[in-house]
Amino acid sequence: MSDRVVEMEIDAIDGLARAGRVHTPRGSFGTPVFMPVGTRGSVRTLSSIDLEDLGVEIMLGNTYHLMLRPGADVIDELGDLHGFLAWDGHVLTDSGGFQIFSLEPKLSDEGAIFRSTYDGSTHHLTPESAVDIQRTLGADIQMVLDVCPALPATEAVVRAAVDRTAAWAERGRAAFLAGRDGGHTDAQRSQAQFGIVQGGVDLQLRAESTGRTLEVGFDGYGIGGLSVGEPRDEMLPALEVVTAALPADQPRYLMGVGDPIGFVEGIARGVDLFDCVMPTRAARHGTIFTDAGRLNLRNAGHARASGPLDEACTCTVCGRWSRAYLRHLLRVQEPTAGRLLTIHNVHWCLNLMRRARSAIGAGQFEVLRREVVEAWS
Amino acid sequence: MSDRVVEMEIDAIDGLARAGRVHTPRGSFGTPVFMPVGTRGSVRTLSSIDLEDLGVEIMLGNTYHLMLRPGADVIDELGDLHGFLAWDGHVLTDSGGFQIFSLEPKLSDEGAIFRSTYDGSTHHLTPESAVDIQRTLGADIQMVLDVCPALPATEAVVRAAVDRTAAWAERGRAAFLAGRDGGHTDAQRSQAQFGIVQGGVDLQLRAESTGRTLEVGFDGYGIGGLSVGEPRDEMLPALEVVTAALPADQPRYLMGVGDPIGFVEGIARGVDLFDCVMPTRAARHGTIFTDAGRLNLRNAGHARASGPLDEACTCTVCGRWSRAYLRHLLRVQEPTAGRLLTIHNVHWCLNLMRRARSAIGAGQFEVLRREVVEAWS
Repeated sequence: MSDRVVEMEIDAIDGLARAGRVHTPRGSFGTPVFMPVGTRGSVRTLSSIDLEDLGVEIMLGNTYHLMLRPGADVIDELGDLHGFLAWDGHVLTDSGGFQIFSLEPKLSDEGAIFRSTYDGSTHHLTPESAVDIQRTLGADIQMVLDVCPALPATEAVVRAAVDRTAAWAERGRAAFLAGRDGGHTDAQRSQAQFGIVQGGVDLQLRAESTGRTLEVGFDGYGIGGLSVGEPRDEMLPALEVVTAALPADQPRYLMGVGDPIGFVEGIARGVDLFDCVMPTRAARHGTIFTDAGRLNLRNAGHARASGPLDEACTCTVCGRWSRAYLRHLLRVQEPTAGRLLTIHNVHWCLNLMRRARSAIGAGQFEVLRREVVEAWS
Repeated sequence: MSDRVVEMEIDAIDGLARAGRVHTPRGSFGTPVFMPVGTRGSVRTLSSIDLEDLGVEIMLGNTYHLMLRPGADVIDELGDLHGFLAWDGHVLTDSGGFQIFSLEPKLSDEGAIFRSTYDGSTHHLTPESAVDIQRTLGADIQMVLDVCPALPATEAVVRAAVDRTAAWAERGRAAFLAGRDGGHTDAQRSQAQFGIVQGGVDLQLRAESTGRTLEVGFDGYGIGGLSVGEPRDEMLPALEVVTAALPADQPRYLMGVGDPIGFVEGIARGVDLFDCVMPTRAARHGTIFTDAGRLNLRNAGHARASGPLDEACTCTVCGRWSRAYLRHLLRVQEPTAGRLLTIHNVHWCLNLMRRARSAIGAGQFEVLRREVVEAWS
């Protein structure tokens, strides 16, 4: 082991796709991986027992929500996010920036001043405070504060975001390294920090942002500012520019992408980590992930369907309940519906990742990629 | 075994309190027992796996809701309520009358004509159709259609309810016996039917209604029309009149009672079965059942509380999460809160029943009764 906080072990490579494990002070998790999003301290409708049962190895927590409710100090007092959630698996926290920029904050080179959506109170977020808050939350991996413009955006907007992201990366990294030994819990004292590449869909700005982020140097790299409104055929070339330049021996995280085609196209370009609320939000609205593509459980055609959501699926829900029952629960707004459908969709995403790993190992990833793209197009 | 569908086995008696098991064609369940209410085909926020994990042996289904959504025919097609819910434990269905009378239906000696709260469509419920619908639903125990007036009510209203309940009991029993061998599933072909005693808090009318229900003869007896607005010191004497007259070798079910004091006062008077939405509804609103009485989880005092909901509790939730975490989930309206708090409250009620059984066995039930009354007064 080098002195890096996280080590990327590559088990197999197939084209640009890679299967491996990320080793951390907590343990390790297999990649490629989908991280379910625990916005407010739980993956919506699930508990940490459900995550264990699903085989989740790493989840995401939202700094913006958690810093406001219940507050980072409360979480700290209760043994960081792991103690608070009673979750021994990995946690990655975002920087909070993505949510805050959507609130139209007062933005300067210094940072952002914003009002809480909970009670209107005023808060500051700077590259330094984002580090401190995330250290207090005690995730295993924290993300640097960046500037993520929605697309389409003018070149000037994307350029300014790249510049400020680079300046904040330096400040964020310095604050992180300076505060390394702080914290009450093991997780707080042994965190990793990932940088974030911006640059919109401008290939030159992407390349520049990648270089500037690498120059600062992080434990892993997030690819931000994609899947924010642009068409996929503009996103993928931008992604390719970044992954081509990132070091092979560190983890790469495509932020905010969680649709099946996004998964396989990302993996095909060398991405290791994904997160998105889409699979869980879709579940709660009756949009079911299956090997044959999207299934709308609200359709009347499922009213008497005795079969499972997905014939091929091995999840607890498909093993036990009919589409008719699950559709009924959804239709009468029983909260049980959201939970069971979420379990299925998360299982499906995790299982796609397992299939990807084994396809990469067998040198057959392109077959899986085509299969998923076809079913979901 | 006699030719009765259900057999009441009494293991211990302590005063009027009794502990035992009810044997049915499906198996058996211990008494006294609390039946969680699965209004629309699931105990709100839970699945049938959760019920198994909690050790639930019998749950209740609401005929009114199920006959309208998804419809008894759909449930029939999917293998009755047991197949639909994927639940091998016992189910008892109510007659649908209680909900329907709250809709101010067109009521006659024949039955009730009411409009669906789902789509305004018109439906009939008669003693005969209540039997048929419940047979189609395929619960293990069905309830006869009765007339249940809210209290306080005039003597004339209570008297009329007793008379119509008696007339409907005869018709309902006749329809049940005539249709015995119908049905596609084992449960549909081996159902039990319970009668229901009315009479408000008028002791003479209670005695009369008990006698007339016994004269018809059922597999067990529900005590209806209590806990519908009257003070407890009027309810308990009315209950006593009924249980004193009911046969010792058949199960007795106090309908709609599910508060801790109601449990122990009912058990002390010889009741075997209870149901109520209160423990589950209270949970979703943050009202927690504990050995020390009611705990309001919304109180700010729990914001940093690292201890469990109830120190003495052995449920999964108390074994894993802090009050602070659960309060946070409740406060930010995460659906996970409702489920975890429901698991705790149902566990607490089931555990109270286990404690009651063992106290009765030890001849110490009065100690438990006093303890619960004191904590909850």
